[in-house]
Order: sequence, then structure tokens, then C-alpha cells
Amino acid sequence: MSTAQLIDGKAIAQAIHSETAARVAALKTKGITPGITFVRVGEDPASQAYVRMKGKKALELGIKSDTIVLPEATTEAELLALLEKLNADKSVHGILVQAPLPKHISETKVFSTVLPSKDVDGFHPVNVGKLLLGEEGGFKPCTPAGVHELLIRSKIPVEGAHVVILGRGNIVGKPMAAILVQKAKHANATITVLHSRSRDIAEHCRRADILIAAMGQTEFVKADMVKPGATVIDVGVNRVTDANDPRGYRLVGDIDFKAVCEVAAHVTPNPGGVGPMTIAMLMANTATAAEAAA
Amino acid sequence: MSTAQLIDGKAIAQAIHSETAARVAALKTKGITPGITFVRVGEDPASQAYVRMKGKKALELGIKSDTIVLPEATTEAELLALLEKLNADKSVHGILVQAPLPKHISETKVFSTVLPSKDVDGFHPVNVGKLLLGEEGGFKPCTPAGVHELLIRSKIPVEGAHVVILGRGNIVGKPMAAILVQKAKHANATITVLHSRSRDIAEHCRRADILIAAMGQTEFVKADMVKPGATVIDVGVNRVTDANDPRGYRLVGDIDFKAVCEVAAHVTPNPGGVGPMTIAMLMANTATAAEAAA
Repeated sequence: MSTAQLIDGKAIAQAIHSETAARVAALKTKGITPGITFVRVGEDPASQAYVRMKGKKALELGIKSDTIVLPEATTEAELLALLEKLNADKSVHGILVQAPLPKHISETKVFSTVLPSKDVDGFHPVNVGKLLLGEEGGFKPCTPAGVHELLIRSKIPVEGAHVVILGRGNIVGKPMAAILVQKAKHANATITVLHSRSRDIAEHCRRADILIAAMGQTEFVKADMVKPGATVIDVGVNRVTDANDPRGYRLVGDIDFKAVCEVAAHVTPNPGGVGPMTIAMLMANTATAAEAAA
Repeated sequence: MSTAQLIDGKAIAQAIHSETAARVAALKTKGITPGITFVRVGEDPASQAYVRMKGKKALELGIKSDTIVLPEATTEAELLALLEKLNADKSVHGILVQAPLPKHISETKVFSTVLPSKDVDGFHPVNVGKLLLGEEGGFKPCTPAGVHELLIRSKIPVEGAHVVILGRGNIVGKPMAAILVQKAKHANATITVLHSRSRDIAEHCRRADILIAAMGQTEFVKADMVKPGATVIDVGVNRVTDANDPRGYRLVGDIDFKAVCEVAAHVTPNPGGVGPMTIAMLMANTATAAEAAA
């Protein structure tokens, strides 16, 4: 039985990081040091880990990074005031407010307060609008932009392909569809978006040339939902209790990896697939923000 | 052979107009007269007719309407300056710049200069972004919003249905997909978007519970592309030369109407289907803009 070729997200992310490091170096010769500020509210351990990881990578690439940690009890008004200050600060090219935020703070308000030109996360409505309209000059959300780069750099044909996306979240599913449906090079895909209310999900999945699983359900995509020869991208990160793991859990994707590898032609491992790409696109976006401000 | 039931766009638009007129009357009792300003550049006969028709309808509903006509040679800067003036004018609740604009003026710039709160056409990136994100408080583009109302008021089940959209334009196809994919009442559809670069178009169409044709190709959808019992929405408006017509042409939709009626369960006539809905949603949006400013 054949086994799928793995899409090496780590290597592709590394290639993008090298490009970003070169762009950062070029900016520095002009006296500009790209800067990103992370804002974290409360003490969610996963958020702490994410921000730490992103800050470390920024440093490696020569990007100046600051992390501002606010207490859980911070009011929405206080957070918005901080963002206005960062918006006005010329040394800050990118601002990332780490989700999730405490329930008393509106993520919608927060994301739309960050200046679109500093919204390296790509969550501001103006950037989302530009994305859907196919306009240049906006930032694309990092995870779907990362998946797109994975496909392009792995030479998976996207144009004319039928891409089936499982999940319609604002972070992955919907912007992913918006990226791939455009009349543009490396896009031009036929798009189907499935979600919790969809019928005949397995049947739809089996028609996909490229299947992107981003609904956050442990090993949802089984081998019999995959067309032989398809490309399967696993965006999911799900916690499964595991007494043998020192953390008490392990992370599992949205696809039944081993079984899917027997049917698909190209599969992303998880971890090591989409994950590293998200941070690669964040760093690339930060360089872009600094270049635009130069 | 069975014949499809026709979806009466005229009657549904009329019902919406009655609701809008009541909202306008209610605003007037508070001393507010909703106002819309149309801006037209050059002498395109179709644009003239559209703006005239919209202005007439506004008047009927008690909405104050102004039309500003600029010469073809107007510069982009002049048009943008006019829009800034209208943005600042409190008596103007809605601003509609009639497309197409002369080639030396960027529609992208123009549409993003209109204040989002006055963008009753729903083309500003902020409004498009809110639409895709599923955020409240934005304006939806009138034609896809009108198609959505047609489906709702005709009691065509949308939730869980497979909706196939032919066309990925910024005016209909993409925002239509964005409306129907949301996790929301009367939405929750499985969405497939097809376009000029799609393969197996007929096969995809035959799977649709609801087929929305918006690609601007005369009678593209044939009977054998329609699943028996499906709903077919014809958004297309195409000119076909016709010596017998006093205008020298007649308007034809994107579907082979007669033949499709033999297969589908519900079909929009054209004219008299989607067309009247676009203007109904424009008027409703103008009332909404005035209510929000009240």
C-alpha cells in the first residue's frame, strides 16, 4: 500500500524565516528595526507559551519584540487605550493581541482597534474585507496564509482544483476560502466550505483534490473520506487526555493521520505541518509592516 | 412535465418597500428625513437609468434623494473630495457612487472613501470584512442580501442546504457565499463557489439544492445542470442583440429559463426576480443608516 508524501512544514517555515531575516537585515541597513508588540491579558498557559514562542522567533530574526502582560481584571477601556498608544508608536510595526481574551472584553472591538497597517494577525475587518475583495495591501490571517504557502511551495496544483474546507471559523476556514477562491495565480480554486450544519460531509470530502481540515475535532477525517491521491492539510490542534504524557494530554489533529496517509498523496504531519507556518507568516507580516512604514 | 413555481421578486420587493416606508415614516415623526445621495460620473446610459430608477423609488418611500452628476473628465481627487463633503453632511445618510466609473478613477479608492456608516451599497472593505466575520452592524451588498431575502421569504430551506454559486464577483458571488456560510439563522448552508477556472461545472451544479447563477453568461445554466426539485436563482443580466426590440437588444439571464423550469421546483423569473430585490435592499439599508444616525 502506498504512503503519502509528507509536506514538511518545518522546512518550508524555515525557508520563509530565512527570507524574513534577510528582509529584516535590509531594513536595518536603512536604520529601521522592525518591531512587534505582543499583548497578553491574564495567565492562560497556552497563551503564555504561544507568545513566548513568537517572541523568541522574532528575536532570532532580528525583529524587536515586546510583550505587555495585563492582569485578567483589565477593563476593555484600558486595553483599548493601550492599543491606541501602540497605534501611535512609530517603533511598533506590528501589534498582536493574543486570543482568547477574558470574557468581559470584546475581541471584535479589540481587533478592530488595532490600526489595520499594524494588524499583522490579519483580523481587522478592513484586512478581512480586502482579502475577500481581492485587494492588495492588506494583511492575511497567518494560518490560512501559511496553508496557502505550504501548497504553493510544495507545488500542489491549486488552480482549478476542488478544495474542500472543513470548518468556517474566522481564524482559518472563512479566510482560507477567501484566499483560494480569488482570481489570482496560485488561487482560482473551486471552493466548498463544510461545517457542523453541513449534510453529507464524508461525500463532499471524498470529492476534494485538496482537503483542509480546520474544525477542531480529533481525528475527524478518516481514510474513507479522502479521495485517493488527494492532498490533506491538517490544521487541527486538539487536546486528548493522556496519562502517559507528562503534561497529562497530547495534541492530536483533525485527521486520522496514519490511515489517511494510506490514501492521500500528500499529507501534512501534525505537529510539524501547519503549526510552524502560522508563526512564519506572522514574522513575514511584521517585516511587511515595517517595510510599508519605511 | 412539472413546472417550477416562480419566486415573485416583485411582490417580495414590494413587501420590503412597505416595511421601509413605515420605517421612514417613523423616522419622520422624530424629525429625521432619511437621505441618500447618488453620485454618477459621465453619461453611461445604463448608469443613468439605474440612478433614475433608484431616485424615483426613494421618493416614493419618503426618502430624500439627490443626484450629483459629474463630467466624465472629473479627476479622482475631485470625486474623493466630494465624497468627503458628503461624509461630513449630516443630512446625507447613504451615499451611492454608481459603478462603473471612468477608467482613470479607482473604484477601490472610491468605495473605501465613503464612510462605512453611509456605505449603503455595502462595498467598503470594513463592511465586507464584517460580513465575512459574521459581525453585526455592517451593510451587506444589496444584490446578495436581496437573494437571501428572496430565499427566506419564499421559505426555501437554506440551513444545511448545499448552495452552489456560479460566479465569484465582488458584487454578488463572494458576498453571497459570505452571507450563506455564516453560523446564523437562515444561513448555515454548505457553500460551493464555481467560476471561470472551475472544472466539472455541470457536475457541481447538479448537486445543488440551491443554485445561484451570477456569472454573467447568457443562459449558461441548462436544464441538465439542475437537480430535480432544486431552487434556481438567476442573478444574470446580459444584453442580447435583438432587431425586433426597439432598444436593439433584450436582457437575458444566466439560466435557460424555460428548460430549467421543467426540472427545478423554484425558479426566479428574470426580469421580476432578483432585480427588484437589489433596489429594495438599497432602500432598506438607507433607512437603517438613518436609524443608526438618529
